[in-house]
Amino acid sequence: MIKLAIIGFGNVGQGFAELLIKKRREIEKRVGKFKVVAIADSKSSISGDFKLEEAIEIKKKTGKLPEDRIAIEIVEGEDYDVLIESTITDIETGGAGLKYIKTALKRGCHVVTSNKGPLVVAFKELVNLANRKGVKLMYEATVGGVMPVIKLIRKYLAICEIERAMGILNGTCNYILSRMEEEKLPFNQILNEAKELGIAEANPSYDIEGIDAAAKLVILANTIYDCNFKFKDVERIGIDSITPEAFEIAIKRGYTIRLIAEASKRVLKVSPRLVPINHPLAVRGTMNALMLKTDTAGNIVVMGRGAGRKETATAMLSDLIEIYE
Amino acid sequence: MIKLAIIGFGNVGQGFAELLIKKRREIEKRVGKFKVVAIADSKSSISGDFKLEEAIEIKKKTGKLPEDRIAIEIVEGEDYDVLIESTITDIETGGAGLKYIKTALKRGCHVVTSNKGPLVVAFKELVNLANRKGVKLMYEATVGGVMPVIKLIRKYLAICEIERAMGILNGTCNYILSRMEEEKLPFNQILNEAKELGIAEANPSYDIEGIDAAAKLVILANTIYDCNFKFKDVERIGIDSITPEAFEIAIKRGYTIRLIAEASKRVLKVSPRLVPINHPLAVRGTMNALMLKTDTAGNIVVMGRGAGRKETATAMLSDLIEIYE
Repeated sequence: MIKLAIIGFGNVGQGFAELLIKKRREIEKRVGKFKVVAIADSKSSISGDFKLEEAIEIKKKTGKLPEDRIAIEIVEGEDYDVLIESTITDIETGGAGLKYIKTALKRGCHVVTSNKGPLVVAFKELVNLANRKGVKLMYEATVGGVMPVIKLIRKYLAICEIERAMGILNGTCNYILSRMEEEKLPFNQILNEAKELGIAEANPSYDIEGIDAAAKLVILANTIYDCNFKFKDVERIGIDSITPEAFEIAIKRGYTIRLIAEASKRVLKVSPRLVPINHPLAVRGTMNALMLKTDTAGNIVVMGRGAGRKETATAMLSDLIEIYE
Repeated sequence: MIKLAIIGFGNVGQGFAELLIKKRREIEKRVGKFKVVAIADSKSSISGDFKLEEAIEIKKKTGKLPEDRIAIEIVEGEDYDVLIESTITDIETGGAGLKYIKTALKRGCHVVTSNKGPLVVAFKELVNLANRKGVKLMYEATVGGVMPVIKLIRKYLAICEIERAMGILNGTCNYILSRMEEEKLPFNQILNEAKELGIAEANPSYDIEGIDAAAKLVILANTIYDCNFKFKDVERIGIDSITPEAFEIAIKRGYTIRLIAEASKRVLKVSPRLVPINHPLAVRGTMNALMLKTDTAGNIVVMGRGAGRKETATAMLSDLIEIYE
């Protein structure tokens, strides 16, 4: 019986629990029986014998869970095999998530996380800790949403040299840019529209300044090159100064403009770039895409939804299954 | 020590041997020591203590290998753990490859193949045989070249329902169609150009009639739906009657034309289809692409080279590594 503890029970944590309910049969066919032994957020929890459906219901109705133990108590004290960590991202300090992940790894538990912060702040430390303890630290959901980029790099392309990775790693920026391309409207107008649709946050700077893409790029580059790049190593330019005129000129020449995150052994860069209109990275809407330039496999491209409740949960579930398969 | 026997030593077999030489260190880091104990083609072989470099050299110079034992003798009699099968494809009978694969599986050996024929003719039989014997039958290289489609389906998307798969599975057709799109020239003219470039065969019917794409689709659909589709189950229309006029009309409306292979639980179909010019499947040149429509992961797309010596070898090597990792 695999014992799971879910820490962080917002959109992602709940989405993961929903997927466990929906796919229980398929999961157990592949990895055997499992049980969620505890769920916690920063101020409450549930543990013992409870139904996932009920936990979701209670959290939705009351905004909290029925017990008083908080996340760190569960992480430190509960008996679990895998920590499912989906707390709020803090890419400056790593936030509470960093503490949860470290604690779980030190206790010899596997970790599946959707949280970029801890990996941006302490990639090498966490990877080394997991290796030392002989457990798995899985983070497919942190980069490119549902695209299987981490598994592609670590498994399928393991014997390849990846000379360069270039990608669209932020769906909000891509939505704004592809709308600007289509509508020839000013940045601010499209941004406001995106806010109304819930595609951009009320404070959109995390996305439009390229911070989110840069954080993902750090994790991606560290995975590919087995390095310890930090957030400050990324050259970064956002998309807020792009004008309809720039698009007009680009389109006339057969190009569009996209926020491209690029990593090689030497350079980490997030910036708006001209992309040929027929290029695989000229994706539209909130899609993400990643192109890996390899020595023996040529260019490999993946595309998929970069965010979303079900999609993030699917990526996390693929991690859980990989641990046990 | 992993013992490999390479059967079929043409372009693909030699490419695989070259990759073993080039990547020996990376491979052994992941799966431990390996040795190619024998290489054979339909009329000759090499075995015992030999260097891969020498075997390639001899075959290139003389057109054959130095010993008289032929492929079937090696497959039946040699002591190996994994059969690397890359003989000539015959999608009607399965060809000699079918016999080699069956023999190896019956002997309790793993098989890595790049050969569509045996899987098109006897998918279920071979999969069942491998399961019964507790060995792996790996065939990533048979569909979509270097794109990791089989692993994506069997591993990453294992718990997803794949409602539909749509793809560009033949690089020759895609080259011809994307050139027709760009140049507005007649089919035959572009086909002749493709022949000169070595992108189309002297007898191109296998590609342009959609036979190759259909064979790949059978393997893909059987993998996704755990079925036993046969070649005759594929509705198939080739690309030879597509005119520059058809392209003109399509392009005016924002579409292009591509040979699309589509599989769902009920329908297997290969036919020229209108594809929006910005659609991920509107890839150009000899690239392949596959879009999987899933229940919880949305649409996932992969793109990569559909053929090529290094690319096919890379896909086969990823299979070998997966067996032992």
